[in-house]
Amino acid sequence: MTDTQEIVAESFGSQGLMKTLGAELTGIDRGEVRIALLPRAELTQQDGYVHAGALTAVMDTACGFAAMTVAPPGSNVLSVEFKVNFIRLAVADRFVATGKVIKAGKTLTVCQAEMVGERGSERTTIAIMQATIFNVPGAGKSSGRPGRPSE
Amino acid sequence: MTDTQEIVAESFGSQGLMKTLGAELTGIDRGEVRIALLPRAELTQQDGYVHAGALTAVMDTACGFAAMTVAPPGSNVLSVEFKVNFIRLAVADRFVATGKVIKAGKTLTVCQAEMVGERGSERTTIAIMQATIFNVPGAGKSSGRPGRPSE
Amino acid sequence: MTDTQEIVAESFGSQGLMKTLGAELTGIDRGEVRIALLPRAELTQQDGYVHAGALTAVMDTACGFAAMTVAPPGSNVLSVEFKVNFIRLAVADRFVATGKVIKAGKTLTVCQAEMVGERGSERTTIAIMQATIFNVPGAGKSSGRPGRPSE
Amino acid sequence: MTDTQEIVAESFGSQGLMKTLGAELTGIDRGEVRIALLPRAELTQQDGYVHAGALTAVMDTACGFAAMTVAPPGSNVLSVEFKVNFIRLAVADRFVATGKVIKAGKTLTVCQAEMVGERGSERTTIAIMQATIFNVPGAGKSSGRPGRPSE
Repeated sequence: MTDTQEIVAESFGSQGLMKTLGAELTGIDRGEVRIALLPRAELTQQDGYVHAGALTAVMDTACGFAAMTVAPPGSNVLSVEFKVNFIRLAVADRFVATGKVIKAGKTLTVCQAEMVGERGSERTTIAIMQATIFNVPGAGKSSGRPGRPSE
Repeated sequence: MTDTQEIVAESFGSQGLMKTLGAELTGIDRGEVRIALLPRAELTQQDGYVHAGALTAVMDTACGFAAMTVAPPGSNVLSVEFKVNFIRLAVADRFVATGKVIKAGKTLTVCQAEMVGERGSERTTIAIMQATIFNVPGAGKSSGRPGRPSE
Repeated sequence: MTDTQEIVAESFGSQGLMKTLGAELTGIDRGEVRIALLPRAELTQQDGYVHAGALTAVMDTACGFAAMTVAPPGSNVLSVEFKVNFIRLAVADRFVATGKVIKAGKTLTVCQAEMVGERGSERTTIAIMQATIFNVPGAGKSSGRPGRPSE
Repeated sequence: MTDTQEIVAESFGSQGLMKTLGAELTGIDRGEVRIALLPRAELTQQDGYVHAGALTAVMDTACGFAAMTVAPPGSNVLSVEFKVNFIRLAVADRFVATGKVIKAGKTLTVCQAEMVGERGSERTTIAIMQATIFNVPGAGKSSGRPGRPSE
C-alpha cells in the first residue's frame, strides 16, 4: 500500500458509521475509491429495501476518500454538499459504490459516485451522486477540530 | 393519534436503519415530521463527528414521512432524489431533523428538511435538504413490491 | 432525420430562450442530445465570463431533449429538478453541452449533462449536471397545457 | 444606498445576461436580494412557458448577490453549485426571485432562493433553489481574473 492508501484505509477504519453499516473498503486508487455494502435487516426502510440513507452514506464516504487521495498531503476532507438520484430499487446481493474525482482543487474537489447493485452476474446502477468536498488544509489525523468551509 | 399518524409511526418503526442509527420519531403533523438523533460512536466519521450520511438518512426519512402525511390514502413513498448542504460541524448534544412538505402533488411531493443541533439552550442549523418524493399509488404496507418511478 | 429527431429539432426551434441565447442544436441521438453555445457579451456575468445561468439553461435543454428521445411517443418533457456543479471558469471559444439519459422510465427520466469548453484543440469540462425529467403522457406538441408532476 | 448596495447594483448592471433576459434588480438588503422577471416570448421553452433555465439564471443571480452583501469587503462571488426544484408551471404576470443567505462563511456561503409567480393578487412558489457560493478574496471589480475554488 502507498502512504495515501494507508491513510485512507486507517481513516475509513476509524469511521464508526461504516462499521455500523457493515461497509467494506474494497478499492483505493488515485482519484477513485470503492466501498461495498451487503443488504441486511439493520439497513432497511419500511418495505425491506436498503434505505436510501444507507446507500447515500456509503456513496458520500467513497467520494470523500476519493477526494482525499488527490488532496494536498496531510489534508482532511469534509462534505460540503451532495445530491443523489435513486434510479432503481435497492435490490441486490451486494452493493458497490465507486467514488471518482471529477475535478481536484486546492480548496474544493468535485466528485461523482455510482452505486451498482450486483445480482448474480448482473450489474445495474441503483443511484448516482454528485458531490463537493472541502479540503481542510494541513489538518491530518492528529490535528485539532477543523472548521467547516462556511465557518 | 390520527390514522395517518399511526401509519407513519408504524412505518417508521419498521425501518431497520432508523433503529440501527437510534433515531426517534418525535413529531408527526400534517405536512411535517420530526426525528431526533443522539450522537454516538457508532455514527461517526473519521474525526468523531456524526457522519454526514447518518444526518442525511434521518433528514431523508423526515422528508419521506412528511410527504406520506399528505399523500393519497394508502400510498407509499420512495425518495426520487435529494440534495443536502452541510453548513456547520455536526457537534451537538442532540440533533433534530424537521421535514416539511413544500408542494404536494399526485405523483411527486417536494420537501425541505432542516437539521438542527441542540447544545444546551442553543439551536443551530447543521444541514439543509431539498428532496423529491414519489407517491407509489395504492401501495400501502401490504402491497407487493412497488416499482421506482423510473421503472 | 428520424421522426424523433424531427420532433426534437422542431421543439428546440420553438424555444424562445435558446434563440435568445444563440444556442445551436448540434446532435440528436437516441438518449443523447448536444447543444453548442458561443460566448457573447449578451451572456455574461459581472466578470465577463459566460453566466452560470446561461450554461445551465443549455444543459437543462440538452437533458430535456435527451429524455424526449427515449420517452413514449407523443410525450412532452418537463424539468422536475436539476443540480449543477461549476468546476472551471467558463472561458472557451465554444461551449458544447451533452445531455445523456442515465435511466429512462415511464414517468421520470434521469439524465446527466456535461458542459465542455473548447479552446483550440483543448477540451475541458466546465460544468456537470444531474437532472430529473418528467414525461408528460400523450401531450405532444398540439396538446393543451400539461400539468407539473406535482400538480 | 449603502456601499454594498451600490456595489451589488453596479455588478448586476454589468451582467450581460440579466440585461438580455430583461431581469430587474428590485431589492438589496443585508443577506437578501430580489430580482424580477417578466414573461416574454424571448424566454420560453417549447410550450410557451418561461424556460427553467431563465428562472434558474435569475435565482442564481439573486443567491450570488445575496452572498455578496455579507462577504468580506472587496470580495467577488462565484457559483460553486446549485440545485433547483420546479414545483409549479411557470405561468405568471411577473416572477420575483428572492435569494437569502442561510450561512455566511469566509470561503463559502450557502443560500436558498424562492421564485414566486404573481398573478393578480395571488402569489405562488414556482421553484426553490439551494446554492453554494464561493467568495473570491479581495477580488473586487478591478481585480484580474479570479480562479475557481477548484482551481
